[in-house]
Amino acid sequence: MLMSGKEYLASIQDGRVIYIGSERVDNQVTHPAFRNGAQTYAAMYDLKCDPANRDLMTYEENGERCAMYYLQPRSQEDLRRRNRAHRRIANFCFGLLGRTPDAIAGNITGLTMKPEVFDSEPGGNKTNLLNIYNHLRRDDIFATYAIVPPQSARNKEYYSSQGLSQPALRVTAEDDKGVTLNGMKMLASGSAYAHEVLIGNVMPLAPDQKKESITCVIPLNLPGLSLWSRQPFNREGDRVFDAPLTHHFDESDCMLVFRDVKVPWEKVIVHDNPALSRNIYVQTPSHVMANHQCNVRFAAKLRFILGTASLVTQATGARDIPVVRETLARLVAMEAGYNAMIDGQIEAWLQVDHGYALFNRRYLYAAIHWAMENHSPVMDIVRELMGGGQFQFPASIDVIDDPELKETFESLWTAGAFGAVDRMKLFKLAWDLIGSDHASRAMSYEKLFVGPAFAVRNYNFINAPWDEFHSVAEDFMATYGTQEANTASPGKPRLNVAG
Amino acid sequence: MLMSGKEYLASIQDGRVIYIGSERVDNQVTHPAFRNGAQTYAAMYDLKCDPANRDLMTYEENGERCAMYYLQPRSQEDLRRRNRAHRRIANFCFGLLGRTPDAIAGNITGLTMKPEVFDSEPGGNKTNLLNIYNHLRRDDIFATYAIVPPQSARNKEYYSSQGLSQPALRVTAEDDKGVTLNGMKMLASGSAYAHEVLIGNVMPLAPDQKKESITCVIPLNLPGLSLWSRQPFNREGDRVFDAPLTHHFDESDCMLVFRDVKVPWEKVIVHDNPALSRNIYVQTPSHVMANHQCNVRFAAKLRFILGTASLVTQATGARDIPVVRETLARLVAMEAGYNAMIDGQIEAWLQVDHGYALFNRRYLYAAIHWAMENHSPVMDIVRELMGGGQFQFPASIDVIDDPELKETFESLWTAGAFGAVDRMKLFKLAWDLIGSDHASRAMSYEKLFVGPAFAVRNYNFINAPWDEFHSVAEDFMATYGTQEANTASPGKPRLNVAG
Amino acid sequence: MLMSGKEYLASIQDGRVIYIGSERVDNQVTHPAFRNGAQTYAAMYDLKCDPANRDLMTYEENGERCAMYYLQPRSQEDLRRRNRAHRRIANFCFGLLGRTPDAIAGNITGLTMKPEVFDSEPGGNKTNLLNIYNHLRRDDIFATYAIVPPQSARNKEYYSSQGLSQPALRVTAEDDKGVTLNGMKMLASGSAYAHEVLIGNVMPLAPDQKKESITCVIPLNLPGLSLWSRQPFNREGDRVFDAPLTHHFDESDCMLVFRDVKVPWEKVIVHDNPALSRNIYVQTPSHVMANHQCNVRFAAKLRFILGTASLVTQATGARDIPVVRETLARLVAMEAGYNAMIDGQIEAWLQVDHGYALFNRRYLYAAIHWAMENHSPVMDIVRELMGGGQFQFPASIDVIDDPELKETFESLWTAGAFGAVDRMKLFKLAWDLIGSDHASRAMSYEKLFVGPAFAVRNYNFINAPWDEFHSVAEDFMATYGTQEANTASPGKPRLNVAG
Amino acid sequence: MLMSGKEYLASIQDGRVIYIGSERVDNQVTHPAFRNGAQTYAAMYDLKCDPANRDLMTYEENGERCAMYYLQPRSQEDLRRRNRAHRRIANFCFGLLGRTPDAIAGNITGLTMKPEVFDSEPGGNKTNLLNIYNHLRRDDIFATYAIVPPQSARNKEYYSSQGLSQPALRVTAEDDKGVTLNGMKMLASGSAYAHEVLIGNVMPLAPDQKKESITCVIPLNLPGLSLWSRQPFNREGDRVFDAPLTHHFDESDCMLVFRDVKVPWEKVIVHDNPALSRNIYVQTPSHVMANHQCNVRFAAKLRFILGTASLVTQATGARDIPVVRETLARLVAMEAGYNAMIDGQIEAWLQVDHGYALFNRRYLYAAIHWAMENHSPVMDIVRELMGGGQFQFPASIDVIDDPELKETFESLWTAGAFGAVDRMKLFKLAWDLIGSDHASRAMSYEKLFVGPAFAVRNYNFINAPWDEFHSVAEDFMATYGTQEANTASPGKPRLNVAG
Repeated sequence: MLMSGKEYLASIQDGRVIYIGSERVDNQVTHPAFRNGAQTYAAMYDLKCDPANRDLMTYEENGERCAMYYLQPRSQEDLRRRNRAHRRIANFCFGLLGRTPDAIAGNITGLTMKPEVFDSEPGGNKTNLLNIYNHLRRDDIFATYAIVPPQSARNKEYYSSQGLSQPALRVTAEDDKGVTLNGMKMLASGSAYAHEVLIGNVMPLAPDQKKESITCVIPLNLPGLSLWSRQPFNREGDRVFDAPLTHHFDESDCMLVFRDVKVPWEKVIVHDNPALSRNIYVQTPSHVMANHQCNVRFAAKLRFILGTASLVTQATGARDIPVVRETLARLVAMEAGYNAMIDGQIEAWLQVDHGYALFNRRYLYAAIHWAMENHSPVMDIVRELMGGGQFQFPASIDVIDDPELKETFESLWTAGAFGAVDRMKLFKLAWDLIGSDHASRAMSYEKLFVGPAFAVRNYNFINAPWDEFHSVAEDFMATYGTQEANTASPGKPRLNVAG
Repeated sequence: MLMSGKEYLASIQDGRVIYIGSERVDNQVTHPAFRNGAQTYAAMYDLKCDPANRDLMTYEENGERCAMYYLQPRSQEDLRRRNRAHRRIANFCFGLLGRTPDAIAGNITGLTMKPEVFDSEPGGNKTNLLNIYNHLRRDDIFATYAIVPPQSARNKEYYSSQGLSQPALRVTAEDDKGVTLNGMKMLASGSAYAHEVLIGNVMPLAPDQKKESITCVIPLNLPGLSLWSRQPFNREGDRVFDAPLTHHFDESDCMLVFRDVKVPWEKVIVHDNPALSRNIYVQTPSHVMANHQCNVRFAAKLRFILGTASLVTQATGARDIPVVRETLARLVAMEAGYNAMIDGQIEAWLQVDHGYALFNRRYLYAAIHWAMENHSPVMDIVRELMGGGQFQFPASIDVIDDPELKETFESLWTAGAFGAVDRMKLFKLAWDLIGSDHASRAMSYEKLFVGPAFAVRNYNFINAPWDEFHSVAEDFMATYGTQEANTASPGKPRLNVAG
Repeated sequence: MLMSGKEYLASIQDGRVIYIGSERVDNQVTHPAFRNGAQTYAAMYDLKCDPANRDLMTYEENGERCAMYYLQPRSQEDLRRRNRAHRRIANFCFGLLGRTPDAIAGNITGLTMKPEVFDSEPGGNKTNLLNIYNHLRRDDIFATYAIVPPQSARNKEYYSSQGLSQPALRVTAEDDKGVTLNGMKMLASGSAYAHEVLIGNVMPLAPDQKKESITCVIPLNLPGLSLWSRQPFNREGDRVFDAPLTHHFDESDCMLVFRDVKVPWEKVIVHDNPALSRNIYVQTPSHVMANHQCNVRFAAKLRFILGTASLVTQATGARDIPVVRETLARLVAMEAGYNAMIDGQIEAWLQVDHGYALFNRRYLYAAIHWAMENHSPVMDIVRELMGGGQFQFPASIDVIDDPELKETFESLWTAGAFGAVDRMKLFKLAWDLIGSDHASRAMSYEKLFVGPAFAVRNYNFINAPWDEFHSVAEDFMATYGTQEANTASPGKPRLNVAG
Repeated sequence: MLMSGKEYLASIQDGRVIYIGSERVDNQVTHPAFRNGAQTYAAMYDLKCDPANRDLMTYEENGERCAMYYLQPRSQEDLRRRNRAHRRIANFCFGLLGRTPDAIAGNITGLTMKPEVFDSEPGGNKTNLLNIYNHLRRDDIFATYAIVPPQSARNKEYYSSQGLSQPALRVTAEDDKGVTLNGMKMLASGSAYAHEVLIGNVMPLAPDQKKESITCVIPLNLPGLSLWSRQPFNREGDRVFDAPLTHHFDESDCMLVFRDVKVPWEKVIVHDNPALSRNIYVQTPSHVMANHQCNVRFAAKLRFILGTASLVTQATGARDIPVVRETLARLVAMEAGYNAMIDGQIEAWLQVDHGYALFNRRYLYAAIHWAMENHSPVMDIVRELMGGGQFQFPASIDVIDDPELKETFESLWTAGAFGAVDRMKLFKLAWDLIGSDHASRAMSYEKLFVGPAFAVRNYNFINAPWDEFHSVAEDFMATYGTQEANTASPGKPRLNVAG
């Protein structure tokens, strides 16, 4: 059953423990660091409930409306339906929220499209998986994930030799009811706002890391679990005008700290199997399903970047200078090319097991790779287009609260037809997109959210049909030997290649 | 009616005048510079005739089989049919021939999909266009084009002041039968092999260049017309082994020199209208239809490059070194992304006038732009992967004709399981792909065949929905004013953006 | 006479008017936004006074010690002396302050090295210039500059047609004592801390902008002058640990707003001469002298970036991974190359008029161009090396004030031999270098402080010896005609090129 | 005693064995493939003999004039003398010959500047080294080198298991007189023209490769030694006009094949010591001395590229288009920066053992790295500036031998003030610089002549003062702890960093 925004806000006030440095956050829905973000997610729930969006954002299953992002696709058209729903959400937040509810939903839906992988090795639990999926879908749950060990966990010998507890999350006890977890997991973006979190391992574990292979989906308010937030970007008293994107779209990033957290067995989907805990993402459609949402989100962001950049050049009067126009043209060629890469995933869709349909895997990894490599350069170009524009404006729009300052501001900062306030509004927006703390965090996020560059390249490498590529050249070389001369004698073999 | 390779070879021995420097080429089908290229095109005609390729490469129209590249597409599926035929041809020549028969065929077919453009201004002739199209299609004609003025034509004042004849091709006389042409046109790639050539103007003309606006489709053996070839790359006595790609794929580039060439009216489609002579390409599907072939061709080339590069790293034993593997991964991510951009053009196809279907215009220009920017860097990477490999081999495989040299060669140049001859074969192929004169000509060709970079960027710029992009940012800015503070007061408006 | 840090702090509490948004700053030396910056500049004054640095940072003139950055260089060794003094200051602030006292000092010293330029056209005043220079040098003054019109000033017609006052600073009245100024000038970085400001025009003015050509050096507390600051980055209560660079190095950027500011004639050096107001920088050594300091400053920053990046890779354990080592190697090759470009300016120094010595002009512009193009990519590489490291730490080090949180922090965030606090200290530093608001402002500053990219390229273009370059190719082409064949006949002319 | 060009030509007709494929070259001084190159080297010998160049290109030692490139530098001024002599030679050949006589001369001179390295381990022979150096210097010898094993040598196990002879050059027998060598060495560029060749190992050998560690300097006509050339680029009958750079500057690249070659002990400098055979280059000034010549050579090439590129834009009329001017400005900024990197090596010269002076090591490796990374992009830019220009000209200038073709050529190919022949001359030159086989070989050569990219980066890495870089950040971090707040309390410690 679909939740309204209001129901959603009530549902996340669940007593979860969040720290900002040493400060314990009482209620994220009212705290200045998170309340605006919470409103944004609530608006997103309302968007989905809106009858006007019914066919776009939901589908019917067992007589109930469910969020489209839980749809198991069975045709090219189903892939288009998921794509359109992702697109609507991404446009809503301009691609600035990485962890909207449709993100991890794709991940988990993908797991259910090849559930037998959970039966293929000991420690997997297909039944739990399907029950969890049904619960998420039926109850309109917003799940996030934390699937990487902390950087501090790399040196295991040290901890044992020093008698210290290991930082990486692992099972420290088990009983009839379930497992007990201790340690730390990174990086739960969106965890101030989500209902539940998928705990797991997307990076390969060593065979002896059995206890760290625990994979489960749990509520964020479990006793013993605390969320350690990085520095939030909103502060008491800031004006929306001065940092409008920070205001709405600080999605939060938290380390998850577990102290004797009890997780019942029915929430566990992998246990004591390091290899399986990673393989579930790549041996099922999970990774592809999740990352198609990432592609769509990034495309929405590119549009927003492009619109803002173009408006900035209009405001500075530079848009008609040839080199600026050429720069915008390059950006728009990149934007169109990226969208083409997404649509190509639908045109070249794959028929997979159980009658399911899947986005083209190679095209997806290519698009992820493209975004990872091009986000920073694109942002750098926009920064150059802004010049020093952002530094010429007052520290805050509150200057207009003082009549004398306001008069000076309006007389000196107006530029032809562009009013002082309008210009400042645009440049504050642009700076919040490319230059603020919030923007800078996104610069890093876009680089690493799928994993480090080498991992992204590896996905591309291992999915490439190398034998097919090789045979193109090999078949051609097979058509000639060492002796053929450049003659047109009748007996000379003509090119005859399969191609 | 479809031509066989043999019929094709006979048909191009039509008396056309070709010069290589001061040498007059008697017969391009037997001359060392062109005979191998001619065989390649002949094989391509045979490929199309092959009953096994009937559905892939031809379609039926008025009871006759026609080359698929003359199909006027009326559905997404028709676009796929064209795409597959282009792909077959491109794979056949590894994307190394820019002007295969399907290239200009796309251009002219595109003109016929919006023929009313020819009626929109004086000087256009729709009837002639449709007749020419029917002739090309019905008679299985290979047409090329020459649609750019010579670089020397820029300084018109000079010629009149000096009493010199102008170099740019133009109409110098007219009578009942037709027009008389004099001057020069660049750059007729493939003209040693094609039957006919489209003469026209893809770059804007000035309003006073009426006489240069002549657009027509003519045979390459018209009296008074001569083809001035750039240096051909094949020479008497070369071995295929030493330069296998040069051998098969030197497509020829010729300047066309007109001396009192008479063209009958029925071959003229634009006359005395500078604006129209250019607009026919961009106001009809012509430019998009032609360039989809270019996209497909370049994709085939990328595959060939990638296969060769990967084999080279295998032969040098470097393929498992992490940084090399990472490099191949980047290349393969690029290759997949480029293919996705092509398939995206089909998924996001456009319904255009008269019930015709068209490849997505913005995605197409994005792909063209991508190829233009990335070809050189890709080639440079492959060059780096080869290291000095190509210079360690003998000047020619003819070393093995001498028993003593052969023994030395085989004992010293063999590397483990890779025989000396096999290694040399691979490196000679790779060098012919990235390093030879033939390869270098392609480096320039890929940069300029659609026009200079600024023109390609301009196509992207003018087709972008800027207003839509702007409104994304503008609609967002409309949701807040100067006063909203960072509070969660109940009355505070929530984000409510169309998205 | 050299000032101590204490004297400096006293001297800048001069009643100047600074606004942060609508807030009027009472005293920049005690205000949280500026007090730390002020301390940094004071420490720099103490550094110069330190007897240990006497020979490095000062020289004697007329029996008094003066700051080395006012030295008029008469030999290669004098250039080295200036270089070393700049280097000491740059190292002190890690190149993170763009406007240290030696910056504009170089600019003004450069003007005095060819003072006759001020006599070459009406409106220049050489006597005033030399008196101002002597005052700055003798009184150990810290000057900054503001030499660009506001972006809003481009559309002059609009203002007159609307009866609005023009935003660009100009002379609005004159009398026996001096001129009256109104309008706005951008961008006075460092103006919260400097004593005086050079007002002028580094961008060409139109001939009719006579009144805007005013060039003068004035105290920052003149009545009617106000400084409008961009958002400062320090806030009340922040810990040094959490943002140590922001803490020390927020140099301030202010728009200067003039309301009937009276400037006496003896402070005016150019008046009513648009061309001269710009030419003084490029027709004297001024621009080169000033920008050598920029080069040296950036080199110090590169070292700091490199040291931090390398430590980060040590902390993450990645430093020995081949691809990471290769990345550091690329960075260090860039750093060494950039330093070489600076030292090359001394090796290839120029003898200029009046017996003065000057840094090599072309090499200087080349280094500026290099820095402008490479700063962003370098920063992006460092960002990639950090991965998500910065987000895994608590929002503030104040976590360790709470014993329970401290225990958790230290047990889970410690990584082998690296303590939790030490790791956090390093990552907070690194983030403040590449990711914080402070860091992001620097990203833009490095792009634009010399002017937009096209201006920097233009400096390179106009100083290049094109004729000499052309003659290299032309002289070679003169050695052969159209007929020479590839023969070794005795009469064949051998290569005989001047080279 | 200095040789004249004529003496040089006589001296290299020494019976050496060169193969072009299966063709045995009788006399490289008269063979079409090499005769023009031989003339170029001869002209270079004449240049050095020219009394006008006496002080620039030679110095006196023991009463005899010697080539400057054998000078052991003892001061900054000596470094300048070497630099100027390299520069003269590089300008003579436009940097297009990689192996001029001053190249390996620097290498060997560098070895003699720390000869004790040869005594530091068994197998080194300092006396032989010094004698060889004296011979080369005194007899005005042109030496080249071959110091890399063939790519085929990597898989040693294979050869023994198959009973095949190993391809890598090694000692196969020893006696009183010397060693016997068998196998292959790559890549002896210039070996068709040099007198002697340094055989050695610049890449690390494994400890068990004792027999491959042989390092010696030998004449190129030793019995049993043959030179296997890659495809030469000059062919019988080519006109200079059509490929002027190929004509003069095809320096040759040969694999050296040894069949029972006897080398007397006095020519051996390292024997049976794998580590030493490599360390002699990096533990002495050798590598730095040799590569400074490479820097200077590349700078000459950059100037030639730039002059040609600028002339091409003049000829096409594009030089005043803003984007073209901007492109030339980028190129010229790169050129100036690269020269600055070379001059910086002199300003920051190093005092090394025995009173010798050395170019700055880190700056040198930085310049090598810069050239390796930027050569291809620079060439690609020039290619773009040419557009399709090179393809619009006839295959050969022999068109003007035919009066009728000549008339057509001159009337149509003339462009305003630029005559047809002059335009063609410039474009043929430009194409031979960036696009011909000769140009393409140089593209690869510039990438690999110092070794693969990772090796060049490694030189930069290992010579960087990492501890010094680290301490910059560490010293700063030591100035604050976890508790300091953002206050201006009197007791607050001020920044106090060594800097």
